[in-house]
Amino acid sequence: MLFHVTMTVRLPADMPPDVAADLKAREKTLAADLQRAGKWRHLWRVAGQYANVSVFDVADNGELHDLLIGLPLFPYMDIAVTPLCRHPSSVRDGDA
Amino acid sequence: MLFHVTMTVRLPADMPPDVAADLKAREKTLAADLQRAGKWRHLWRVAGQYANVSVFDVADNGELHDLLIGLPLFPYMDIAVTPLCRHPSSVRDGDA
Amino acid sequence: MLFHVTMTVRLPADMPPDVAADLKAREKTLAADLQRAGKWRHLWRVAGQYANVSVFDVADNGELHDLLIGLPLFPYMDIAVTPLCRHPSSVRDGDA
Amino acid sequence: MLFHVTMTVRLPADMPPDVAADLKAREKTLAADLQRAGKWRHLWRVAGQYANVSVFDVADNGELHDLLIGLPLFPYMDIAVTPLCRHPSSVRDGDA
Amino acid sequence: MLFHVTMTVRLPADMPPDVAADLKAREKTLAADLQRAGKWRHLWRVAGQYANVSVFDVADNGELHDLLIGLPLFPYMDIAVTPLCRHPSSVRDGDA
Amino acid sequence: MLFHVTMTVRLPADMPPDVAADLKAREKTLAADLQRAGKWRHLWRVAGQYANVSVFDVADNGELHDLLIGLPLFPYMDIAVTPLCRHPSSVRDGDA
Amino acid sequence: MLFHVTMTVRLPADMPPDVAADLKAREKTLAADLQRAGKWRHLWRVAGQYANVSVFDVADNGELHDLLIGLPLFPYMDIAVTPLCRHPSSVRDGDA
Amino acid sequence: MLFHVTMTVRLPADMPPDVAADLKAREKTLAADLQRAGKWRHLWRVAGQYANVSVFDVADNGELHDLLIGLPLFPYMDIAVTPLCRHPSSVRDGDA
Amino acid sequence: MLFHVTMTVRLPADMPPDVAADLKAREKTLAADLQRAGKWRHLWRVAGQYANVSVFDVADNGELHDLLIGLPLFPYMDIAVTPLCRHPSSVRDGDA
Amino acid sequence: MLFHVTMTVRLPADMPPDVAADLKAREKTLAADLQRAGKWRHLWRVAGQYANVSVFDVADNGELHDLLIGLPLFPYMDIAVTPLCRHPSSVRDGDA
Repeated sequence: MLFHVTMTVRLPADMPPDVAADLKAREKTLAADLQRAGKWRHLWRVAGQYANVSVFDVADNGELHDLLIGLPLFPYMDIAVTPLCRHPSSVRDGDA
Repeated sequence: MLFHVTMTVRLPADMPPDVAADLKAREKTLAADLQRAGKWRHLWRVAGQYANVSVFDVADNGELHDLLIGLPLFPYMDIAVTPLCRHPSSVRDGDA
Repeated sequence: MLFHVTMTVRLPADMPPDVAADLKAREKTLAADLQRAGKWRHLWRVAGQYANVSVFDVADNGELHDLLIGLPLFPYMDIAVTPLCRHPSSVRDGDA
Repeated sequence: MLFHVTMTVRLPADMPPDVAADLKAREKTLAADLQRAGKWRHLWRVAGQYANVSVFDVADNGELHDLLIGLPLFPYMDIAVTPLCRHPSSVRDGDA
Repeated sequence: MLFHVTMTVRLPADMPPDVAADLKAREKTLAADLQRAGKWRHLWRVAGQYANVSVFDVADNGELHDLLIGLPLFPYMDIAVTPLCRHPSSVRDGDA
Repeated sequence: MLFHVTMTVRLPADMPPDVAADLKAREKTLAADLQRAGKWRHLWRVAGQYANVSVFDVADNGELHDLLIGLPLFPYMDIAVTPLCRHPSSVRDGDA
Repeated sequence: MLFHVTMTVRLPADMPPDVAADLKAREKTLAADLQRAGKWRHLWRVAGQYANVSVFDVADNGELHDLLIGLPLFPYMDIAVTPLCRHPSSVRDGDA
Repeated sequence: MLFHVTMTVRLPADMPPDVAADLKAREKTLAADLQRAGKWRHLWRVAGQYANVSVFDVADNGELHDLLIGLPLFPYMDIAVTPLCRHPSSVRDGDA
Repeated sequence: MLFHVTMTVRLPADMPPDVAADLKAREKTLAADLQRAGKWRHLWRVAGQYANVSVFDVADNGELHDLLIGLPLFPYMDIAVTPLCRHPSSVRDGDA
Repeated sequence: MLFHVTMTVRLPADMPPDVAADLKAREKTLAADLQRAGKWRHLWRVAGQYANVSVFDVADNGELHDLLIGLPLFPYMDIAVTPLCRHPSSVRDGDA
């Protein structure tokens, strides 16, 4: 089941650089794992923003929530979730 | 080059059903053609809305504009465009 | 799987009363059927508004979409969908 | 009498972890008590957010206010209150 | 139990003057009746707007809803409802 | 002359409790004085919010401003002012 | 007593030109009268908008309301009212 | 050439009182100078707000910008600029 | 003197095609004239929107207003005006 | 390919002056370099704001993103990106 998720990162201006670097490194590792596991189906950078547009493929709402709150940057992100479904005009197998 | 596009359709309440049906049929045919041509890379329905979330893959801003204003439903849609780029944490070939 | 849905009805001022009455009657019948089938789990009126707050219990995003676009009043409603999940502090069986 | 309440938690980034943990533990205990007492009728997590959607069943506006300001997390929450009433299309006894 | 209600009237530009006059006359009569019955506790005009600020005193949310949807101008009003309660700093008997 | 005023209090999370307590005590004393003087005509708590809805009865805009900036909590409040006047449908002497 | 008023005019697209011309002519005449009477103290056009920024000098809220609803274009205007008072840094006699 | 400017002051809660007092004193002196020079044509306090509504009379956009960024409180103000011009219905010489 | 102007066109759905075509043709001719005269300094299409971003170079606010209200599409456009000035980091002669 | 970019700078109130001065100096140098390289095509100050309106000319979305996140002030700016394309009514060579 697919969900459209936008994440905008807002790190406090006074966060020590090594703390920020550690958070980002752990976020990157987990994002790669979730992509390889097929849960984080798409991940794009929004041009000019410290933000991304993503599509998750999960079993249900609960799994989506667990994945998102498990992200190291979760406490510093504004997150918007939109449930998606098959579009009647879609002809691509990959969008189901 | 990728663009995130959301389209929300607002047909006038007094549009004759056959006019609406014709518009939708032509929109569907063109959407299928553009998907097969690789221009309209993703197309999902927003659950509970007469709206979609799409990703276009075009040569430049101008081609994106020409594709969107060429849609039969263009005069009846609210459209939001967001330029995307490769995310440094993306490991999927398909998101490039 | 639970979804929080708010629906605000906006009938055109010039809709003939019998058309409106027919729409509302069919909406009411379908709403009762969906409640009895366990799909439309909660339905409350927002005080002072021609609007409701609802909770749906469906198999997935697609079923939610099909139920909502099948409502007779769908073309005249502003709909907002929020995916819900089990709250860690919830002790009520009925909220699962 | 029913009220729809949404609560979004915004803990300061520099709150010591043990202070946050204590607040959350006390919030959880009180939430369980209020649910068992029938005052906090429904409690759901919003997927992807540190937020909940709730329904309270109280004697009047004053009791609702006293319950909400008594929550340990109250100073850190954005709260929105919407009064609900019986929907004419509701067929569920539990929504009265 | 007190509720703060704001009502903004938006009559269609093409409503025949006699229809508008009839609606307003019936609204005025009902407003006077509800004030005398103690249900519509306060009624003020917002300076420069076709809008009012009101305070209702009703038994519960359901009575408030029934009163508001019973207003002749209800289909043409934007209505916002805010539940009120006794303020701890209030010393006026009339605000209880 | 009547003004509708809403005040939402936002105390900094790190304000020392005794400073906050002193501010609130002085605010309460002054609010009582202004109510007894007939200047602060109505004062209600918004249910579920650290906010109030008030009606002031003052000689002119300048007196309203002086009263509001004189409140101990003024630096910590979001304030919205709406000028009111007699409603043509009002039958209550107390709303003039 | 001074009030800041912004007025944005929105004439229906299908209003007959002679009806619009008559409305505007009557508005202009009344605006001139009110300026000469000292009630409409300032009147400026917002560059690029069918809108104005004005300052009214009236006895009280009620007189302001009566003046504004008496404008021929009132039913077609969005109006925002802000009460003004003497600024402590003002040194101009004309702003009192 | 006239510009409508609104300024809302937001001093940090932890600014030392003497720093705030010095900023305000210098702001006041400069405001008086600019009014006497005819640059700051009007200056009113918004009732109930730490904000003002002003009209500037400058040679061009650049002079307006230089005046505004030169204000001691500039770093602590939200500023909105609206270009004004002569209104065709204005009969006052002072508004040209 | 430079002004940033955005124009979003909203033609009524029921405007006859020949009326729309005539409006657009006259708009295009005038736009070309104003560009050649150096008044309409820049004109770009917003990708995916029936909207443009423009920069005007005019003597003052009044000339800007006269140019904009003289556009054939003016009654059907949402227009936003922002005054620009020389940026201290600009090294391009053409932006002065 | 052209992009319209607005940047609003929000430096923390407690940033040391020398840190701010260094950031601004590096920003200015880089801005000049990018303008001379033809990447930063236009740069204007918004009158009365610590903000600019810019037009970038880049190969694609990715280059735009890299340029923007490379700006020394990037962590302190709100940035909005709008893709532009050739306007059919444009007659200026410089806007292509």
